[in-house]
Amino acid sequence: MKKRVGVILSGCGFLDGAEIYESVLTLIALEKAGLEAVCMAPDVEQHHVINHLTGNEVAEKRNVLVEAARIARGNIKNIAEITGKEIDALILPGGYGAAKNLCSFAIDGPKGKVNPEVRRLVRDIFAARKPMGFICISPAVGAMVLGETGVELTIGDDPGTAEAIESLGAHHVNCSVSEIHMDPDRKIVSTPAYMLGQNILEVSSGIEKLVQCVAEWIQ
Amino acid sequence: MKKRVGVILSGCGFLDGAEIYESVLTLIALEKAGLEAVCMAPDVEQHHVINHLTGNEVAEKRNVLVEAARIARGNIKNIAEITGKEIDALILPGGYGAAKNLCSFAIDGPKGKVNPEVRRLVRDIFAARKPMGFICISPAVGAMVLGETGVELTIGDDPGTAEAIESLGAHHVNCSVSEIHMDPDRKIVSTPAYMLGQNILEVSSGIEKLVQCVAEWIQ
Repeated sequence: MKKRVGVILSGCGFLDGAEIYESVLTLIALEKAGLEAVCMAPDVEQHHVINHLTGNEVAEKRNVLVEAARIARGNIKNIAEITGKEIDALILPGGYGAAKNLCSFAIDGPKGKVNPEVRRLVRDIFAARKPMGFICISPAVGAMVLGETGVELTIGDDPGTAEAIESLGAHHVNCSVSEIHMDPDRKIVSTPAYMLGQNILEVSSGIEKLVQCVAEWIQ
Repeated sequence: MKKRVGVILSGCGFLDGAEIYESVLTLIALEKAGLEAVCMAPDVEQHHVINHLTGNEVAEKRNVLVEAARIARGNIKNIAEITGKEIDALILPGGYGAAKNLCSFAIDGPKGKVNPEVRRLVRDIFAARKPMGFICISPAVGAMVLGETGVELTIGDDPGTAEAIESLGAHHVNCSVSEIHMDPDRKIVSTPAYMLGQNILEVSSGIEKLVQCVAEWIQ
């Protein structure tokens, strides 16, 4: 039976939800690696809705799980229904949604809150010593939940974000867009993706390496 | 200077807009081929909005261009602003949006209407003998605009859809998901993608071949 990798999506569209290319590249890389993706998202309202043509906030309400279902072609679960026992690893693509909907890092900084179901699942996977991959800004979620363990993470090289992550007890390590940073003791890998990326191919390179690393740690 | 390939998106999400994987795979393949993608969409209201978690229609209005901007990360034009002279080729990814928002094939069948800006651009590109690629259900658009030229197209092997396409004067040719059908005289190539696809990798194979074919015809 294929190993199952949870993928936490945070909406659909990089300004208010999951970064679409990062999410799709993760799903492609998982399929290439012979792993089954288990897409999931929290059943909560989005922090806000951004018109991606203008970049402006609009007076609309959208649900994170319902919008994330667009990326998953409807094949998605409410994260509240998923336990750590059901999956062999966990990956969080980025996009502002990771920092607005999975936690409030984008609004409140490192003192913000993490969605309780996201916190529970990240903690359970870590406690079970199963691998996790954090992409783009989602290492902020990793730091907010696991900072006290001294986990090593990268969001690229933005000094302000790196400092916020270090303030949570995590260690930030600079990394280029097409590379990954591995914390093998904790089985945690991260890649900067669109924190630094200028085009899809370089983002793809980092995400493929991240998924390959997760696949090797699952064995 | 890089050759420019127009990509007509029809929203964001396969049930009421552009198929996200097909769109992203097209953009990845274009980048790999050294071509510049020029994303565009009509500035019109979606035919309807589907909740992708439940599959049910919801009482909401969304704009095709605004939603397509999610897939394009905001880098998208109103198709009304694009002339055939500005681009070297044109590709239409699929998703129900191609048959609901770019034309009314999904509602009215082959006698339906095509968005006038889509019709104009497809006609102009054809008249200029520049290549075009149609993915998934979007060959229905190709048949509605260019059927009278006897163009060869594939939507996979669905008999009803093939018959509808033939009723417009086009010739339908069965094709498997990871392959393409070429009409070299008219420089038109098509691939079934999610009309037949069971997973991303086989869809990716067909789309990569389609983009490669377009790239060769541009030379």
